[in-house]
Amino acid sequence: MPHKVDLFKTVKDVSVNDPFFSRIQNVVIDQMIPYQKRALNDEIPDVKKSHCIENFRIAAGQSTGEYYGRVFQDSDLAKWIEAVAYSLVVKPDPELEAQADEAIDLIGAAQQEDGYLNTYFTVKEPEHRWQNLADCHEMYCAGHMTEAGVAYYLATGKDKLLKIVCRLCDHIERRFGPGKVYGLPGHEEIELALLRLYRVTGEKKYLDLAKFFIDERGQDPEFFIKEAKNRGWKRVKSDETTPPTYMQNHAPIREMNTVEGHAVRCMYLLTAVADLAAETDDDELFDACKRLWENMTERRMYITAGIGSTAWGEAFTRDFDLPNDTAYAETCAAVGVCFFARQMLEAEPDGRYADVMERALYNGTISGMQLDGTKFFYVNQLEADPHMNADAYYDEEYSAERTGWYDCACCPPNLARLMTGLGGYIWSESGDVLYSHLFVGSTVKAGNGAEIELKGNYPWEGNLTYTVKKGAGKAFKLAIRQPGWCENVKLTVNGAAAEAEEVAGYLVLERDWQPGDVIRYELELTPVRVYADPRVRADAGCVALMRGPVVYAFEGVDNGPDLSCLRLPKDAAVTALPYDANLLEGVVALQMTGKRAVPDGGLYGFDAAQEEDVTLKAVPYYAWANRGSNQMRVWIRE
Amino acid sequence: MPHKVDLFKTVKDVSVNDPFFSRIQNVVIDQMIPYQKRALNDEIPDVKKSHCIENFRIAAGQSTGEYYGRVFQDSDLAKWIEAVAYSLVVKPDPELEAQADEAIDLIGAAQQEDGYLNTYFTVKEPEHRWQNLADCHEMYCAGHMTEAGVAYYLATGKDKLLKIVCRLCDHIERRFGPGKVYGLPGHEEIELALLRLYRVTGEKKYLDLAKFFIDERGQDPEFFIKEAKNRGWKRVKSDETTPPTYMQNHAPIREMNTVEGHAVRCMYLLTAVADLAAETDDDELFDACKRLWENMTERRMYITAGIGSTAWGEAFTRDFDLPNDTAYAETCAAVGVCFFARQMLEAEPDGRYADVMERALYNGTISGMQLDGTKFFYVNQLEADPHMNADAYYDEEYSAERTGWYDCACCPPNLARLMTGLGGYIWSESGDVLYSHLFVGSTVKAGNGAEIELKGNYPWEGNLTYTVKKGAGKAFKLAIRQPGWCENVKLTVNGAAAEAEEVAGYLVLERDWQPGDVIRYELELTPVRVYADPRVRADAGCVALMRGPVVYAFEGVDNGPDLSCLRLPKDAAVTALPYDANLLEGVVALQMTGKRAVPDGGLYGFDAAQEEDVTLKAVPYYAWANRGSNQMRVWIRE
Repeated sequence: MPHKVDLFKTVKDVSVNDPFFSRIQNVVIDQMIPYQKRALNDEIPDVKKSHCIENFRIAAGQSTGEYYGRVFQDSDLAKWIEAVAYSLVVKPDPELEAQADEAIDLIGAAQQEDGYLNTYFTVKEPEHRWQNLADCHEMYCAGHMTEAGVAYYLATGKDKLLKIVCRLCDHIERRFGPGKVYGLPGHEEIELALLRLYRVTGEKKYLDLAKFFIDERGQDPEFFIKEAKNRGWKRVKSDETTPPTYMQNHAPIREMNTVEGHAVRCMYLLTAVADLAAETDDDELFDACKRLWENMTERRMYITAGIGSTAWGEAFTRDFDLPNDTAYAETCAAVGVCFFARQMLEAEPDGRYADVMERALYNGTISGMQLDGTKFFYVNQLEADPHMNADAYYDEEYSAERTGWYDCACCPPNLARLMTGLGGYIWSESGDVLYSHLFVGSTVKAGNGAEIELKGNYPWEGNLTYTVKKGAGKAFKLAIRQPGWCENVKLTVNGAAAEAEEVAGYLVLERDWQPGDVIRYELELTPVRVYADPRVRADAGCVALMRGPVVYAFEGVDNGPDLSCLRLPKDAAVTALPYDANLLEGVVALQMTGKRAVPDGGLYGFDAAQEEDVTLKAVPYYAWANRGSNQMRVWIRE
Repeated sequence: MPHKVDLFKTVKDVSVNDPFFSRIQNVVIDQMIPYQKRALNDEIPDVKKSHCIENFRIAAGQSTGEYYGRVFQDSDLAKWIEAVAYSLVVKPDPELEAQADEAIDLIGAAQQEDGYLNTYFTVKEPEHRWQNLADCHEMYCAGHMTEAGVAYYLATGKDKLLKIVCRLCDHIERRFGPGKVYGLPGHEEIELALLRLYRVTGEKKYLDLAKFFIDERGQDPEFFIKEAKNRGWKRVKSDETTPPTYMQNHAPIREMNTVEGHAVRCMYLLTAVADLAAETDDDELFDACKRLWENMTERRMYITAGIGSTAWGEAFTRDFDLPNDTAYAETCAAVGVCFFARQMLEAEPDGRYADVMERALYNGTISGMQLDGTKFFYVNQLEADPHMNADAYYDEEYSAERTGWYDCACCPPNLARLMTGLGGYIWSESGDVLYSHLFVGSTVKAGNGAEIELKGNYPWEGNLTYTVKKGAGKAFKLAIRQPGWCENVKLTVNGAAAEAEEVAGYLVLERDWQPGDVIRYELELTPVRVYADPRVRADAGCVALMRGPVVYAFEGVDNGPDLSCLRLPKDAAVTALPYDANLLEGVVALQMTGKRAVPDGGLYGFDAAQEEDVTLKAVPYYAWANRGSNQMRVWIRE
C-alpha cells in the first residue's frame, strides 16, 4: 500500500487560481461564510431559525433560554469554523479570523469540566449523556468539532480549539474503547476526525479509538436496538425500528459487499475506513473499501455523482434503483463522495477514484448552491417540476428552487468547507511521484522542493499548461491524470511530443524538471452522449449529455414547457456553443435540433403523438434553477 | 335531460350469465363474502384485526371491551351487507341471508334511542358526536349503512335495516340542513345514499338534505378549519392542516373545473351530484359533472381507469401527473369511477361514459383482488418491483403481492358489492330505448315487458348474440354500444345486414322485436398499441397494449428479470395467443418479438446497450401478481 499523504498539507501547499473554482471560492468566502455566520446567529429574516450560536451561549452560561434545533445543531458551527480555517489559507482575513476566535472562545466556555462538549445535552438533558448513541449525535458533533480544531490549528497555528477537542476526545476515549464502555457512534464522523487528530498530535490513543469504532462496527447488529431497550427514556423519533443497515451496523465492514443505509453516514465511515486501511497497511480492510467503492460507483450512483436515491432514510436502496424525480442525492452525500474518493486516491492512486471525485465536484456537490451562494439545495433531483414539488407529495426537502436555510442545515456548511478546502484535492504526492488529479488552476509546492503551476480554462477548454517554477534538483515523476471520459489527449514537453508511461489512469513523465519547462496537455472536449445501464428503470431509453466532466441538463427556461415531450434523436448533432460569460456566471451551453411531441388532445390514443423539430439547449446541471422556477431534466428520451 | 333510471331495478331485472364475470361473481359469493365475514369477526389468523362486528356488540351492550379500529370501521359491515343483498339476487342462499339478518339485528341493537348509529362514538367518545365532521366519518358510515338498508330491502323485501337507516337519517336530518346546524360530511357518501333512500321511500326530506349537502359544499372553504378551531378536542390526525381540496370543499361544485383531492371522496360526491342533477333537471350542475368527467378522464386517469395518482392524501395531483411506479390508484377509487360513470350514463346515455366504466370493470377494479378472491390490492401500481416495494420507501400499502386484509379495509367489501351488483351496470332504459352498455352475458327484463338475452365470450371473443326472448308488443329501440376503441363492427338482424342509427356511441335498432329475433354483433378484437399524451412523463416513449377493453401487462414470470431492459419496436407484430383456460383462470395472452438490452457492465457508458431479440408475453393487467412475486409493467419502451 502506497505512502499516506495528509490531506491538509496539500491545502497549505497549493494555491488555487482557477477561472472556474476561484469564482466559487470567492462566492463561498465573500458570501456564504458571512451569510452562514449570520444564519447561525439568527440574523437572517424569513429563513429557518438556527439558534446554533445561542445554544452555545446558553450552555456557556452567557445567555438564558431554551435549547432549540436539532440534536446535532452544534455541528453547523464546527463546519463553519472548518470552512473559515481553509478560507484563511485561500484569502487571509483578520476580521473573519477574529470572528472564528470569538466562536472558539464561546465553544471553550461551553465545554464542561470533564471535557464533555455538546450543547443539547448540557442545556436540555444533562442526565442523558451518552445513553442514546444511535440517535443523539454526540460523537458526530465531537467529530466535526475535532475536524474544525485540526483545520484551524493547521491553518492559523492557533491551538485553542485543538486543545478543546483533545480534551473532548480524551473524555470520549476514557469512556469508550476496549475494556471500557462498549459503544458505537450512531452517525459516523468521529472516526475520520480521530485519525486527523492522531496525525496532528501523534497520540496513538486517537488512532486506537478510531480503529475500535471501525473494527467493532457491525459486530453486533443488535447493538443500537439493545441500547434503545436498555435506557428508560425515548426520543420522539425512536431508533428501535431503525434497521441496522441505516447506520451501517448490519455487518462487519470487512464483510460488506454493498453500500447501505444513510448515504452521508456511509461516506463518512468509508472515508475513515480507507484512511485507517492505508495508515495501518490493512489490505483486507482496503479490499472492503474497493468492493464498496465498486458497488457504489457502478450500481448506486447518479451520473452527477449523487448518491442515496431515496428520501426514506436519506439512503441507498438497491442496485440500479436511481429514480430521477424522487432522487434524493443529498448535497452532503456528494460532498462525502469527494471525501471518500480523496481518501481512496491517497491510499491507491488510480484515475477511477479521481474521475468520480471530479464528477462530484463539477456536478452533484456544487448543484447544492445557488450561483450567488445564498440559497441551497438539500436534495438534488435529476428531473424536477415545480408543480410536482409544490404539491408536496414528496418530502418537503424536494424543491425546484433553492432555499435560504434548512431546519437541518448540514449541507451549506459542508459545501463551504469542501470548496474552501479544494486545494487539498488537486494534487498529491506518493514517494517520488507528484500526482495531478484535477485540472484546477493552481500552483503546488511539492515535498521535494519543486514548484509547478497548472493553468487552463477547464472545464470549458481542454488545453492545460503545466509550468515548472522550481525544480527539485533531481529527477522525479509527474503523473497527470487521463480522465476516463477522454480517449484523445495530446502531451508535449517543451514543444516536443512526450513519451509518457500509462499507469492506472495517469500519464507519468519522469525527468529532472527545470524551471521554465512547459508541459502542454490537451484533452479533447466534445459533447458526448451517455447511456445508463438499462437496468436503471428511470433512464431506460434515455440519453444524457456530458462535455468533459460536466453533466448537462435541459431546463424549461430554454426549452419550453412539458420537457417529457422532448426527444433527442440518435443522429442529431450536439454542438457546444461558444463560452458565454453572461450566461450563468459563464458556461459553455450545448445546442442541438431535437423533437417535440405535440399532444393531439387525447389522454390515450392509438397513434403516437406527431413530432416537430425544435432547437434544444442544455446547460450545466450544477447551474440549473438559477433563472427562476422551472422544469428540468438530465435524462432525455432518445 | 333524459329520464332517470334506478340502478337497482336493473339488478333485479338482469340475470348475469357470463363466462368472465360469473366466475368472478362466484368467487366473490363463494369465497370473498364468507372470507370477509370471518375477517370482520376476527376469525382469520395472521391478517390485520378488524374488530368491526365486536365493536357493534360492545355498542349494543352484548360484549365488553374497548373499541378497536379506524373511526369508519362500521362501514365495512355495511358494505358487506350491501354485497350480500346483491349476491342474494344472483344466488339465493338462506344461510347467508340468516347471517345478514343476524348482523342487522346487531346493528339495530347498537342504534341509540335517538336514532344515532356509530359504534366509535357510542363506545368511545359519546360526548364528541357530530363535532368533528371533517375527520370522524359519522355521515360516511351512515351513508354506507343507508346504501345497505336500501339494497337489502330491494333484494329481500325485508325492511328492518331500512327502518334503522330511516331513523338514522331522520336523526341526521333533524340536526343538519337549512335553518339547522350547518354541517358537511368530511368524507362524502351520505349524499348518494340519501338519494337512494329518497327513491325507495319517496320521502322528499332525504332529497332535500342531499341537495343541501351538495349545494353547500365549497361555499365556505374554511368550514372544516373553523370546525377544528371551535371544538376543544383533537384527534391525533388533526384536520387543521388538511387543505380544503382534500375533501372537495375548495369551491362550490358548480364552479369546479378539475377533480381534486381524495379520489374516493371525489367519486362518491360526483356520483351523488350526477344523480341529483338528473333527478332535479339541473343542467348547470350536470355541466359541472361533465367538465369534471372530462378533466378526470382526459387528464388524470390511468389507462386502467385507476385514479388518484399519489399516496399523499390518496389524491388527484395535477393534469398528466400519472407516475406508474408510485401510482396509488386505490381499488376503491376505480370502484368509484364505475359509480360515477353509471350515474353519468343514466343521466345522459353516451358511449364515452360506458367506455370508461368498462375499462374500470375489466382492469383497475378487479386488479384489486386475487383470482381466488382471498387477497387484495389497496394500491394498483402500473409498474412494480418487489425489491422496490420491500424497501418500503413508499407507503406500506404499496406491495407487489396482494394482502389478506388491511388495517383500512375499505377496498375488499367495495369490490364485493360492485361485483355482486354488476347486473345494474349492463343495461339501462330511457324512454323507449333499451341500452346495452356492457357486453356481459345476461338476460334483461325490460320495463315494456320485452326480454333479451345477450351471449358471448367477451372480452376474449368479439362475437355477441342478442336473442329476443319476449317482445314488447310494440316497436322499441335497442341501443347497442359501439366501444370507442373499436372502429370495425358488424351488425346483422336475423342474418341480414342491419341499418343502425349511430347516436352518441350507440347503434340504435328500432323494430317490433319478436321472440326468436337474433342480432349478431361482431366487434373486431385485435391487439392494439396505445400511446399516452406525451405530457405524461412516465409514459413518454412508451407503449401499452390493449385488446378490446383489456389492458395488458408484462410480468417477470413471463419475461425474465429487469423489465426496464425490454423494448417493443414499433414494427413488431403483436399476436393474440389462443384462449388458454389453464392460464390465470382463462385468458387470451399476447405474444410478440421484442428486444432486450443487454447490460455491458458499466453503469454509465458512451454506447447504448446492445439489444437481442426476445419473445415477450403480456397478460391481462387485472390478473398480474397471481403467479408469485415479480416485476410488472404496463408501459413498455417502444
